[in-house]
Amino acid sequence: MNIVLQNIERADLETVAGLAEAGVATVHEAQGRIGCLASYMRPIYAGARIAGSAVTISAPPGDNWMLHVAIEQLREGDILVLAPTSPCENGYFGDLLATSAMARGCRGLVIDAGVRDIRDLTQMGFPVWSKAISAQGTVKETLGSVNIPVVCAGQAIEAGDVIVADDDGVCVVRRTDAKAVLAAARKRMDAEEAKRQRLTSGELGLDIYDMRPRLASKGLKYV
Amino acid sequence: MNIVLQNIERADLETVAGLAEAGVATVHEAQGRIGCLASYMRPIYAGARIAGSAVTISAPPGDNWMLHVAIEQLREGDILVLAPTSPCENGYFGDLLATSAMARGCRGLVIDAGVRDIRDLTQMGFPVWSKAISAQGTVKETLGSVNIPVVCAGQAIEAGDVIVADDDGVCVVRRTDAKAVLAAARKRMDAEEAKRQRLTSGELGLDIYDMRPRLASKGLKYV
Amino acid sequence: MNIVLQNIERADLETVAGLAEAGVATVHEAQGRIGCLASYMRPIYAGARIAGSAVTISAPPGDNWMLHVAIEQLREGDILVLAPTSPCENGYFGDLLATSAMARGCRGLVIDAGVRDIRDLTQMGFPVWSKAISAQGTVKETLGSVNIPVVCAGQAIEAGDVIVADDDGVCVVRRTDAKAVLAAARKRMDAEEAKRQRLTSGELGLDIYDMRPRLASKGLKYV
Amino acid sequence: MNIVLQNIERADLETVAGLAEAGVATVHEAQGRIGCLASYMRPIYAGARIAGSAVTISAPPGDNWMLHVAIEQLREGDILVLAPTSPCENGYFGDLLATSAMARGCRGLVIDAGVRDIRDLTQMGFPVWSKAISAQGTVKETLGSVNIPVVCAGQAIEAGDVIVADDDGVCVVRRTDAKAVLAAARKRMDAEEAKRQRLTSGELGLDIYDMRPRLASKGLKYV
Amino acid sequence: MNIVLQNIERADLETVAGLAEAGVATVHEAQGRIGCLASYMRPIYAGARIAGSAVTISAPPGDNWMLHVAIEQLREGDILVLAPTSPCENGYFGDLLATSAMARGCRGLVIDAGVRDIRDLTQMGFPVWSKAISAQGTVKETLGSVNIPVVCAGQAIEAGDVIVADDDGVCVVRRTDAKAVLAAARKRMDAEEAKRQRLTSGELGLDIYDMRPRLASKGLKYV
Amino acid sequence: MNIVLQNIERADLETVAGLAEAGVATVHEAQGRIGCLASYMRPIYAGARIAGSAVTISAPPGDNWMLHVAIEQLREGDILVLAPTSPCENGYFGDLLATSAMARGCRGLVIDAGVRDIRDLTQMGFPVWSKAISAQGTVKETLGSVNIPVVCAGQAIEAGDVIVADDDGVCVVRRTDAKAVLAAARKRMDAEEAKRQRLTSGELGLDIYDMRPRLASKGLKYV
Repeated sequence: MNIVLQNIERADLETVAGLAEAGVATVHEAQGRIGCLASYMRPIYAGARIAGSAVTISAPPGDNWMLHVAIEQLREGDILVLAPTSPCENGYFGDLLATSAMARGCRGLVIDAGVRDIRDLTQMGFPVWSKAISAQGTVKETLGSVNIPVVCAGQAIEAGDVIVADDDGVCVVRRTDAKAVLAAARKRMDAEEAKRQRLTSGELGLDIYDMRPRLASKGLKYV
Repeated sequence: MNIVLQNIERADLETVAGLAEAGVATVHEAQGRIGCLASYMRPIYAGARIAGSAVTISAPPGDNWMLHVAIEQLREGDILVLAPTSPCENGYFGDLLATSAMARGCRGLVIDAGVRDIRDLTQMGFPVWSKAISAQGTVKETLGSVNIPVVCAGQAIEAGDVIVADDDGVCVVRRTDAKAVLAAARKRMDAEEAKRQRLTSGELGLDIYDMRPRLASKGLKYV
Repeated sequence: MNIVLQNIERADLETVAGLAEAGVATVHEAQGRIGCLASYMRPIYAGARIAGSAVTISAPPGDNWMLHVAIEQLREGDILVLAPTSPCENGYFGDLLATSAMARGCRGLVIDAGVRDIRDLTQMGFPVWSKAISAQGTVKETLGSVNIPVVCAGQAIEAGDVIVADDDGVCVVRRTDAKAVLAAARKRMDAEEAKRQRLTSGELGLDIYDMRPRLASKGLKYV
Repeated sequence: MNIVLQNIERADLETVAGLAEAGVATVHEAQGRIGCLASYMRPIYAGARIAGSAVTISAPPGDNWMLHVAIEQLREGDILVLAPTSPCENGYFGDLLATSAMARGCRGLVIDAGVRDIRDLTQMGFPVWSKAISAQGTVKETLGSVNIPVVCAGQAIEAGDVIVADDDGVCVVRRTDAKAVLAAARKRMDAEEAKRQRLTSGELGLDIYDMRPRLASKGLKYV
Repeated sequence: MNIVLQNIERADLETVAGLAEAGVATVHEAQGRIGCLASYMRPIYAGARIAGSAVTISAPPGDNWMLHVAIEQLREGDILVLAPTSPCENGYFGDLLATSAMARGCRGLVIDAGVRDIRDLTQMGFPVWSKAISAQGTVKETLGSVNIPVVCAGQAIEAGDVIVADDDGVCVVRRTDAKAVLAAARKRMDAEEAKRQRLTSGELGLDIYDMRPRLASKGLKYV
Repeated sequence: MNIVLQNIERADLETVAGLAEAGVATVHEAQGRIGCLASYMRPIYAGARIAGSAVTISAPPGDNWMLHVAIEQLREGDILVLAPTSPCENGYFGDLLATSAMARGCRGLVIDAGVRDIRDLTQMGFPVWSKAISAQGTVKETLGSVNIPVVCAGQAIEAGDVIVADDDGVCVVRRTDAKAVLAAARKRMDAEEAKRQRLTSGELGLDIYDMRPRLASKGLKYV
């Protein structure tokens, strides 16, 4: 029942890098407005923008043992994703675990629970998106699993899925969709650039997108 | 039922500028401790201090169509105020809409819902006070209204009311009260300056405000 | 029933300074994983790290009168700790009270309610950990007590207990345990240093802490 | 600044009775999907269905003095509506105040705060819709106002507006709209009856409302 | 992108009936402590105990159009499961939809959003587990999907999975695990019966489960 | 560090019975408006009214082992009080533990976490006040303590303190204050009876309590 899946497939690093550059909002739109984790998942410091392959962790409330197990599974470019089996805000993760994860090439942590040693993590440049900041410690008594499918902050995530995270929050992209989503995201960014210039010059979205007839037909009245 | 009120009255820009300088806490006190929006309305970055005339938006959950309609109604010095018709955290607003709003002279957004493109908005210097940060996108299918009275984060706001917003949150001042509130705010700031100096020198509020007799008469015991 | 306890015992300032340096997470662990206040208690700005002796305040909702009373009781190195008698988010404390508290040697405020004048407090370097940021004002009508035992954000705190606060939140240490907790914290920090170096070099926690046999005996399966 | 408005206009009792019978969901729909108070406003017992004219109360957190003032303003068929000036869960109201309100013809209480003596209120048949059930007591120290416009649980309410409340929550109807809303509600109920019979017989909403073509044109695919 | 999956597999009705009888807590334990939806999912009335095959709905916030689409897909013994694409408390479902769903053999609704017409649903005996009770209406403008995998209240659910719901909340069982889980649940119930009798007679769990040695070895001290 | 305190003092059963009869709201007022647990502590069924001596439990999140230890410490008339060491909603307690606790004379459970088997507990007449109802199970891996001081739902509680619980929630009375509080509660009930009769006859609180002069002096204006 408690397992560690050791061989997981990952998206190629180039695609992952492209998704990081596109950012959460664009990626979310490009894949049809799906994949956003709950809005309570906030970064511990501003400015981080990452993408990586998910190494998933299912852990009991208040028990961070499986983080040690998961770190062994990390490869360059991975992101740890921890979902507790019931709601918990304990600080599962701090500077020592971050040191270990960074040594294995990990780019960050997404955790539907708490994190601590914020000051150190910020100085190390190890970004975390979490539900809470909490110094409350954990035990190492009960098993969980690594690289099984989890639900984290409202999204189903499988090991190897691509996680994109920035100041807007966190988004998940199915591993097998990553390339297509990146293509769609780039197309979207190109289209936005043209619109941005027209909007900057004072043109209205009402006109650029030709919204006036549809607004009128729906019954909007100007008084 | 879905309307856009086009001609709204606004407070004069000088009064508005004075209220921005006074700040949320002082303005709130000066008008008799009323007008604060709910404390969950937080700025997306620290340090912004603005005031402006409200252009109000009533929008369905998950539908940002009316923002495009509202932007046409903006004048120099306005602030967009969006209240969803039921609780929603979607990201109604991002960098493209901000570009358009800024081109029309808009000073910021107050939204009882979500906002996205935080990094871009911060770089553009377009401040937002919101309930959530969320990349979750919206549709353009259902009408709302612009410049009708709304309840936003617990306060009734009418188009043309003055919105004051800073690191302490957001406060609304009735348009017709703006001048009187500014006068009261200035009086309060002058009075505070004298107190600040006495307090800095170590004098106690207990003595400055002559609180000891009243505390004693209420029954406070020193042990 | 409403009292001010004037003579409270405090931990010595050197011990307090040591606890500040150790920080919240380490102190919490060192005393057996107890003492953390609720995770909703967040600093108004990043980077503050303080410890001090608690001057406690029990105050009614929406009434900050007792803060004036408490400030008289402050000595160099103290921290104000306010617990409302029922949940409240009003802004009990702002720049004038901070000016007064600083003049008396106060190092900061821990308040299970709201605070305002964030910009000023940040510029003054007066740190606050609070449940909310709110400009909503208070009255001075109803008595509370000073230096009685309170429950603040989920922790029982007595006057003179040591409060440690940093970016991870707030922790309380019983006054009489302070010396022993500091010793344990220092021991822990020393032990962590060695581990940090091994982890940096890529060694795994699984091996450093010899976790593999126990994981296997509990039934963890590698697939 | 603290006032009691003594002469307020009310909707006629017959219209009010009709709205009670229609119920919250129907009335809300009939007036264009507006007027619902926040969903956290729950009845203290199941089965109550009332409507009445609002006697509004703006009260400080933790202070129920104004309830005594408001009770004098009650007439047969009124409903008390209390909005605290900042979020509060104290138990402002219990069996003694209910006894007094009932003696004045009051039909119930809508309070964006706490209530207590649930057992007694249930036995008396005095319904309350509240944010919380709490025994935490209040003081009588600070003035508020009676019959001024308030925002209660997200809705702007004026004295004399019609409050409709049942197991689905609470809805407000502008006094001057009451008759028209009742007419629309009755029309809606008649229309629903016919639909109910068709649905009971197994006919689908897809067919009754002719939704299939529009679903197809929007792009819904059956797989 | 918006699809209706028409042919889904279901567990046999006998297994489903057995799981209903076992109840949520037992089923959850029997399948290894997984599958519980979030604790905020509460029944609209006490005493309902059901199980059925999930017909899943992914719907936009504030838009209940897909419920009409889903009802056509219902078979005897099914349960509707609705997950909004972003958090929403609107009342998506009321007595008319319940009438229609019952006519198609539906046993109940599990909705991570709001429901209304509580009184009618209770009288009809149509049970609902929801996040909120809300009369706030919805529109029919934007497509969603039916019978795609969803995350509802923290659990991943696929069409045809077995939903078990009672006063303790809601649990999901993978369709392909249903038989095995039922067998394990029955075993567990048998084992509990013997324990219940020993506990009733005053015997202690400490002795029945032989906990004393392990407690002692972990270091528990009796004082 | 993990201990079980075996010999605790209790209030006499007669005093406890008197406090149960007085009820939560009255006891809370009689002891000076202190002692109410947070309002989220709700009974699993309506109508229970109990008082008893606290047997306290400090337990890790998601681990109910200490409940078995605590049950051995129960005597006739006790109430179990469980506080998790960090926020948790798991269902720590169900019908088997209730069977065991009842066999030892226990009157109920107050738990700042979750409970399950609601249907069975209701049928057994074993009342529980909890933060959540949740079927999510727990483990038995990590020690806690029994009969140490805890903070439960915002109140500091010591073993042997008297717990009073009814439909209004939960209140704690210090063991050594129990007799005095009961006397004050009875006095209060007597006084209320006279007031109830006057209020029933239509007399106003404004007059009974002679509030008009003080309201006028504070500045209340009748318009």
